[in-house]
Amino acid sequence: MVHPRVLRAMSTPLLGHLDPEFLTIMNQVQTLLRAVFETQNPFTIAVSGTGSAGMEAALVNLIEPGDQVIVGVNGVFGTRMADIVGRAGGRSVKVEAPWGQIIDLPRLEGALKQAGAVKAVALVHAETSTGAHQPLEDAGALCRRHGALLIVDAVTSLGGVPVQVDAWGIDACYSGTQKCLSCPPGLAPLTLSPRALETLKARKTKVQSWYLDMSMIADYWTEGKRAYHHTAPISMVYALREALRLVVEEGLEARFARHRRHSAALMAGLATLGCEPQAQAGHRLPTLNCVHVPSGVDEAGVRKSLLAEFGIEIGGGLGPLAGQVWRIGLMGESSRHEHVVTLLSALEQIFRRHGWAKQTGHALAAAHQSYATSA
Amino acid sequence: MVHPRVLRAMSTPLLGHLDPEFLTIMNQVQTLLRAVFETQNPFTIAVSGTGSAGMEAALVNLIEPGDQVIVGVNGVFGTRMADIVGRAGGRSVKVEAPWGQIIDLPRLEGALKQAGAVKAVALVHAETSTGAHQPLEDAGALCRRHGALLIVDAVTSLGGVPVQVDAWGIDACYSGTQKCLSCPPGLAPLTLSPRALETLKARKTKVQSWYLDMSMIADYWTEGKRAYHHTAPISMVYALREALRLVVEEGLEARFARHRRHSAALMAGLATLGCEPQAQAGHRLPTLNCVHVPSGVDEAGVRKSLLAEFGIEIGGGLGPLAGQVWRIGLMGESSRHEHVVTLLSALEQIFRRHGWAKQTGHALAAAHQSYATSA
Repeated sequence: MVHPRVLRAMSTPLLGHLDPEFLTIMNQVQTLLRAVFETQNPFTIAVSGTGSAGMEAALVNLIEPGDQVIVGVNGVFGTRMADIVGRAGGRSVKVEAPWGQIIDLPRLEGALKQAGAVKAVALVHAETSTGAHQPLEDAGALCRRHGALLIVDAVTSLGGVPVQVDAWGIDACYSGTQKCLSCPPGLAPLTLSPRALETLKARKTKVQSWYLDMSMIADYWTEGKRAYHHTAPISMVYALREALRLVVEEGLEARFARHRRHSAALMAGLATLGCEPQAQAGHRLPTLNCVHVPSGVDEAGVRKSLLAEFGIEIGGGLGPLAGQVWRIGLMGESSRHEHVVTLLSALEQIFRRHGWAKQTGHALAAAHQSYATSA
Repeated sequence: MVHPRVLRAMSTPLLGHLDPEFLTIMNQVQTLLRAVFETQNPFTIAVSGTGSAGMEAALVNLIEPGDQVIVGVNGVFGTRMADIVGRAGGRSVKVEAPWGQIIDLPRLEGALKQAGAVKAVALVHAETSTGAHQPLEDAGALCRRHGALLIVDAVTSLGGVPVQVDAWGIDACYSGTQKCLSCPPGLAPLTLSPRALETLKARKTKVQSWYLDMSMIADYWTEGKRAYHHTAPISMVYALREALRLVVEEGLEARFARHRRHSAALMAGLATLGCEPQAQAGHRLPTLNCVHVPSGVDEAGVRKSLLAEFGIEIGGGLGPLAGQVWRIGLMGESSRHEHVVTLLSALEQIFRRHGWAKQTGHALAAAHQSYATSA
């Protein structure tokens, strides 16, 4: 869901991408992005592509052929990072965990000690394919002790749970606009630490992508330079500004609490239907709620009914979890009471119709109980 | 300028990127794009980035390390193509022409004969930095005779002048949404011929960009497959559909004639102010009108006055043409009578105020005369 103010911003008549008024809007977007990333990084911009373009931008700008990169792989997006490292000519050392589990810091440390020179460690903060919520508080310090950069995928976390770029020592952090920022897809917020920028400046080879070459793009996003690189997606920048304003108006703490509250209610309701959480206890995202499909239940059939009869879209499992889990987003504008109760109500009706549940009402009661407790 | 129908489409509430309704919209966009590219190519899609992402996508998917590519360089965008070829590990053989001149086919043929094995020839159809309109009618046949693919940049031509992908034998053709299609920037239409797809399939190395890897993206844009790759910029796809509908409703021939008519009137008016065309006679784009700034006239000052006093943005010169030319877009929705007369009127006022013109009215009279002749 996108807030009406953001939709309205999308249809604002266009300015030129070098028009002084548009450059002012870019400055505002940068200031707002720094607030949301909790960073002072001057290099904080929106990449002209979706979240995956942010991932590629972070990796190909910092990695040169032959560089060794440790990648935490516990779902689709860690796998994708390792793929991109290879395409950039880097060698990825995978630290794997079962899908749904987090990457343990001691194991990461072991890999860092064993690997020799490591250019960067890449971790997924919020693994959209499993709902696992990777702890990062101490990851930056660990990477610094081993002279490695820390690259973090915050696609499904930014604006939904804390992402403290400076406090956690993250060197490159990217996200997407369409998850917890509740903006249409099309831009990838990206922030680079001064250490990351030095690495970029010290490259011996050209960045393999011209479109995503941040050494050139920095000159467009820097006040006083504004050198033309490529035409910015103007309307998306308008929309992102409005979406970020909404985040800041609500306040980060209040927004994170809201995400926790609605996730807790949803999970309480789902438990009564026999849907157990997929991700490791204590490390579950409130933004992406991943649960096992109870045995005997027609996984795809339920998703089809939800969409056709109730207009609700939930995700199925990816990769090894295909057919086994549901992934339910409660992100940004979508993290709301009415979505929780509407979905639970719809699931109860579908489950009862097929005899997978004897009666309805328990899921909603459990959600209400959760709301009462958290209020 | 963007048509109100397109702005309205931008603010349509979002569907999921795998929602059946959205997939139907993607099909419609593909059908409309084929009509505008004048092609039957099944692989006709919108890349999730601006025109430069389209350029990068076309090049990095077809070029492998060591491949030789002949690049026509007569402006900014040919230069950029050669840069990207190098980043992809290819060797670019430049066939150069002075900025504003076209690349002669006989010279291209000479280069093809001399170079040995050539993977592709890359040409800019509409060089936005100079207003040169590259003839392409015979380029495809020439490339085929030498076993080379033909890659064409149609960023500033698609929807404004004929781009006949099939008739001209173009193997990869890309554009941007914000030029003659009059849609906000953010997508890059791209079509690949069956021959280009075979080349992609026969690659020995992975495409260096994961985000722009068309072998994976093809599976998302193919009916019946729809494999998730990255989240499509939904709102931009809505907008592009509406913009393409407007093109088809107007009719390609009528649209091209409109572009020619308004360009002729503008150039007639500009001539009375001493502004001579920059591009080679007989090869001037009606979409991007590039003229020399008369000697003694304050180039940047005029642009500043136009923007501040009249709300009109025109482009300055790029690269070696900086300070010497104005680049005036009359593209898509902006190719209109009121824009021609408003700009000429504003220029006459500014010129007279500074004593660069003795009196006003001549430019408008010349434009009217041109309209009378073409009507």
